[in-house]
Amino acid sequence: MREPWEAVAGARVFDLAQPMSTGMPQSPNHPPFRMLLERRHGDVVRADGGSAANEIIVTGGHVGTHVDALAHVSHAGLLHGGREAAALQSHRGLSALGIDAFVPYVGRGVLLDVAAVHGVATLPAGYEVTPEDLDRAAAGLDIGPGEAVLVGTGWSRRWPEPEVFTGQSHGAPGPGVAAGRWLADLNPRLVGAETIAFEHVAPGRGHATLPVHRLLLVEEGINIVETMRLDELLDSGVREFLLVVNPLPVVGASGSPVRPLAVAR
Amino acid sequence: MREPWEAVAGARVFDLAQPMSTGMPQSPNHPPFRMLLERRHGDVVRADGGSAANEIIVTGGHVGTHVDALAHVSHAGLLHGGREAAALQSHRGLSALGIDAFVPYVGRGVLLDVAAVHGVATLPAGYEVTPEDLDRAAAGLDIGPGEAVLVGTGWSRRWPEPEVFTGQSHGAPGPGVAAGRWLADLNPRLVGAETIAFEHVAPGRGHATLPVHRLLLVEEGINIVETMRLDELLDSGVREFLLVVNPLPVVGASGSPVRPLAVAR
Amino acid sequence: MREPWEAVAGARVFDLAQPMSTGMPQSPNHPPFRMLLERRHGDVVRADGGSAANEIIVTGGHVGTHVDALAHVSHAGLLHGGREAAALQSHRGLSALGIDAFVPYVGRGVLLDVAAVHGVATLPAGYEVTPEDLDRAAAGLDIGPGEAVLVGTGWSRRWPEPEVFTGQSHGAPGPGVAAGRWLADLNPRLVGAETIAFEHVAPGRGHATLPVHRLLLVEEGINIVETMRLDELLDSGVREFLLVVNPLPVVGASGSPVRPLAVAR
Amino acid sequence: MREPWEAVAGARVFDLAQPMSTGMPQSPNHPPFRMLLERRHGDVVRADGGSAANEIIVTGGHVGTHVDALAHVSHAGLLHGGREAAALQSHRGLSALGIDAFVPYVGRGVLLDVAAVHGVATLPAGYEVTPEDLDRAAAGLDIGPGEAVLVGTGWSRRWPEPEVFTGQSHGAPGPGVAAGRWLADLNPRLVGAETIAFEHVAPGRGHATLPVHRLLLVEEGINIVETMRLDELLDSGVREFLLVVNPLPVVGASGSPVRPLAVAR
Repeated sequence: MREPWEAVAGARVFDLAQPMSTGMPQSPNHPPFRMLLERRHGDVVRADGGSAANEIIVTGGHVGTHVDALAHVSHAGLLHGGREAAALQSHRGLSALGIDAFVPYVGRGVLLDVAAVHGVATLPAGYEVTPEDLDRAAAGLDIGPGEAVLVGTGWSRRWPEPEVFTGQSHGAPGPGVAAGRWLADLNPRLVGAETIAFEHVAPGRGHATLPVHRLLLVEEGINIVETMRLDELLDSGVREFLLVVNPLPVVGASGSPVRPLAVAR
Repeated sequence: MREPWEAVAGARVFDLAQPMSTGMPQSPNHPPFRMLLERRHGDVVRADGGSAANEIIVTGGHVGTHVDALAHVSHAGLLHGGREAAALQSHRGLSALGIDAFVPYVGRGVLLDVAAVHGVATLPAGYEVTPEDLDRAAAGLDIGPGEAVLVGTGWSRRWPEPEVFTGQSHGAPGPGVAAGRWLADLNPRLVGAETIAFEHVAPGRGHATLPVHRLLLVEEGINIVETMRLDELLDSGVREFLLVVNPLPVVGASGSPVRPLAVAR
Repeated sequence: MREPWEAVAGARVFDLAQPMSTGMPQSPNHPPFRMLLERRHGDVVRADGGSAANEIIVTGGHVGTHVDALAHVSHAGLLHGGREAAALQSHRGLSALGIDAFVPYVGRGVLLDVAAVHGVATLPAGYEVTPEDLDRAAAGLDIGPGEAVLVGTGWSRRWPEPEVFTGQSHGAPGPGVAAGRWLADLNPRLVGAETIAFEHVAPGRGHATLPVHRLLLVEEGINIVETMRLDELLDSGVREFLLVVNPLPVVGASGSPVRPLAVAR
Repeated sequence: MREPWEAVAGARVFDLAQPMSTGMPQSPNHPPFRMLLERRHGDVVRADGGSAANEIIVTGGHVGTHVDALAHVSHAGLLHGGREAAALQSHRGLSALGIDAFVPYVGRGVLLDVAAVHGVATLPAGYEVTPEDLDRAAAGLDIGPGEAVLVGTGWSRRWPEPEVFTGQSHGAPGPGVAAGRWLADLNPRLVGAETIAFEHVAPGRGHATLPVHRLLLVEEGINIVETMRLDELLDSGVREFLLVVNPLPVVGASGSPVRPLAVAR
């Protein structure tokens, strides 16, 4: 029986995270990312000629490629499982269902290429992904319960255009409620996509409501990975892979940046 | 031929990161970690009854379990490969050898249990790990070039005692220069351990000099993972595993928090 | 009739703020102060040869010399005036009684030198200031309602010793409840002192309860200025002055750093 | 002889600072301001029923109403007085000419109402203030060396419109080099105005060069106060006043937020 490391030897590793830098596109609802050096080489030189650089990083938990914890969203005051949000939140964060409760995912992932269904590299700004789209994109792919399902729209190709990427004025492509239901019915462990919010964002509407978040996080207990960089994976033709999703264990946070990896031969 | 996800099905996944929370032990040289909620559930309630929590995270790049980029340390003004540090650093961080230049590691890892060599669960505060220790801990383990080598001291068991863990007064166990040389001679892709600095820290000496950092990062180009949580892996008896080390792609940073995973059957 | 600027011409201006720098003494309850340069001169050079430095500042509102807003403390869920705290707090901060509701103070201040009452430059760590101390220190000073009253203990002389200054183990000198009552009966606009908390902090007890905060902020509606640097003013013999207290107008904050000035001829 | 506090009794105090809150207009070059509560009332309740709120504040030094230290700008590598910038900057900030070297200003200030010269409440976006404007606005006002000179454009009235206020696309009114020279020839201690940069910003040009900063900070050693809220002072007709400018003593910073006050009868 082959060992796990033998099974990945020589495999291709896809980096599914967007690079994090000051000024990168992100939701205006969250603290803006900023990284800056504190010490530079030469500021402090040790007796032996050594010197070290370091930095400060300020970020939100829902900034860059990130995982939404189940506690991120509530409905009528209740989190997933009917737990009362007010009783769980304090200066220490969320005492249950936070990102520290997310068990790192190491398992099969599939990519549903909805852009390809429509014969394009990138879906248009306000496009609503439908159950029919997902049916067609999933043709030939078995998806078992507890697996990870990524929905490809090609939107990560717009990352270099912050105004466009954030979708503030023209919207962003994503699953509507019907597509969210289609996904939930697969009983996946998690879902993921390229946009800032795993939602269909109509032009000019912003994040007025987040119905798919409610469905997945609150009702179904399915985590969401957002702002993924899927362009290389889409271009590769790889649709099945070993997926690793291991957000930082920030105790009590409602989300965390993550660097997901897809491993495929 | 088995697919990568089949090879990990049913495997045990070890979470090798310490939990990140305000007040956790860290080096006083780096910006202190702090996470606090900004919005709590109920602060903003959307028209449909939905509400969301979010947070701000302030941290250093060398805080919690983290990876040192090659650009973290210089010697006599030069980084690895003889590159001049001064020419590479700016408000944008380090334009080369930063943590964004670290290719995510997905490969074999081995754990050298030096504590077990001495018949203890945790090595004493100021203990210097020697080449002989490593020889004995590595007995029976093949280690190939480009692999990852973790050195177990049991120090992650002291995490709940910040005064002790940081080693400010009593030091911390770790490899001296001779052990560092032993490791470098294996040509590993990266090394890792449980303490804040991958060094032998003698009592009361602090991080006056960092000779093993110089050896590994500057001279040899080998990344270091620090503040790993290895206690469960040590206790498990597992000494070979698939290791995932995927720090956040923070452009220009000298290091980044990470949640390493070990996967073993 | 003389104009205000004529009245201060040639006057001595006392700077009553402690310098703010990374590592300075502060309460462990609050986010630690940190300032670091982002851009340095030379990082970006404009076409004409100009360059600019800038920085990031991370701080708590109760760090360094600062003013406590009335909304800082509640009792049994109620703020000053019986307002329910829960109804006023959100991601936007405190919608009433925050530091932005503090009208800048420009008026008479008096300094009660309690250290001098005891013939010392600095009172001992756990000393409780009593009404008798204040009576003696106030001898010969008229204090009208709406004025500012500073209580001198000499503690700002301990600023260079963070372990001592914070009083975590040995306590800090300050008014007990009886002295707090004595002060409140003057109906001052604000009070101020040199320690981190305007309280008598007994050795080893920390800030388990804050009875004087409750009395002044919640019951009486009197603002508190903490961590003032009064040593020069104490040494000068000046006991009456024009005092300026103008915290930053941080909307919704429970406190803000401030640089108070005393102007005297 | 009247005491300073007697001279201000009953005087009107003008608050010349803009309120600081998340999302307020600021230069995109500087870390964005953010204030959020950490503890809220009820999170931690002490034995006696007391509770306290606190916050974190993240900001740049040149954000909100603020003072530019002389070390903010260099020319050809040199700061004011010909000091080499590179030798003064480190992880500790600027070791000379930083905002901590700014002696708090308590003295006469005058307001030159350039908007009134043109018969408007607010000058248009890209307007360049000229020496003639200043001549006319200063008619009847004696200005002595070492005093403070504020230039009123009415721009603080645009504060509620962040897109407009920042001047990114349409520019902002301010002194050109000739007006800067006019001001410098008065030998003032400091100058101030309502815009983010004390410059004439032509439409679409942004802060490509900062010639007036060079003139004032580098060549003449005159501090600049920016983003002042002068609308009430302009409307009041008061043109002479006691001005207090006391930025936070942030050691090594190139600037600091401030809450300037004007006191007039």
